[in-house]
Amino acid sequence: MKSTLRPIGPIRFPAVLTSPLLRGGGLPDIAVLCLLAGVIAMVIAFAREFDPQPFHLDARAAEQSIFKGLSASGWHTAAMSMRLFITGELKVAGGSIGLGVDELRWPMPVRPGDVLRLETEILDVRASRSKPDRGIIRIRNVTTNQRGEIVQTFMAFVMVQRRL
Amino acid sequence: MKSTLRPIGPIRFPAVLTSPLLRGGGLPDIAVLCLLAGVIAMVIAFAREFDPQPFHLDARAAEQSIFKGLSASGWHTAAMSMRLFITGELKVAGGSIGLGVDELRWPMPVRPGDVLRLETEILDVRASRSKPDRGIIRIRNVTTNQRGEIVQTFMAFVMVQRRL
Repeated sequence: MKSTLRPIGPIRFPAVLTSPLLRGGGLPDIAVLCLLAGVIAMVIAFAREFDPQPFHLDARAAEQSIFKGLSASGWHTAAMSMRLFITGELKVAGGSIGLGVDELRWPMPVRPGDVLRLETEILDVRASRSKPDRGIIRIRNVTTNQRGEIVQTFMAFVMVQRRL
Repeated sequence: MKSTLRPIGPIRFPAVLTSPLLRGGGLPDIAVLCLLAGVIAMVIAFAREFDPQPFHLDARAAEQSIFKGLSASGWHTAAMSMRLFITGELKVAGGSIGLGVDELRWPMPVRPGDVLRLETEILDVRASRSKPDRGIIRIRNVTTNQRGEIVQTFMAFVMVQRRL
């Protein structure tokens, strides 16, 4: 599968997780991650594989649906947002392992050709109680399109490696 | 993108949403949807596109990670579960439009070659207050593997067309 996601260029932000944040498990100031990436042409291909409903597959059916045009599956929006999260400027040594997601919402559809931007707010950083080499960050991810409209929001708990 | 998801065969269940359920917006008995589908070989391809972390891309890195072997991105598991939901025996006229997802959890990783099964419990059916031609169902989706282990759970609100 050839990627059609094109990075447009990151906005730099403080490298929060290489700072002392995870050393003591204390609370950080709220930190914001901003980045940009190109998006889609893959709306139909993704939908054919994972969400094969007419309004995600066919322009005419999409026009007649409540979407009034082709739009990405919400799970495609979620997957693209993950791509932004992983390949953005927030570099987490050892990787980010999602433990759970809450309040996942898709207030606006993503259209083919949209440019998505992910903003990650780090709400909380704490050491794992059971695994001293791990930490858990709680984040709020907000994905917007090129008009600044919010297309997805969620909260998540993410397991990361802890600096000892 | 050529699909590698292979249906293994559905278990039949009462066609709940072609029953009178949405006619009056009343509460149904809890209904359960069961179906089966083949799964993966696409773990790495999906991860390369949407979740490019070493433990989803490389067998050796995966062995050394807490996953102890290659596993699918949680968003891949979510997307495959959507495929099961849409192509299963629960046929919703006009399609299913996800409004929101809560309590999305991945208690076990999905491995390449796993066979996933989705069970959808319909918790609630009601008419939309603002759009008389629409209804909203609240569901609980549980995805299990071939050993019956739960690999994903979530609750969702789904917009459907209402019988008038």
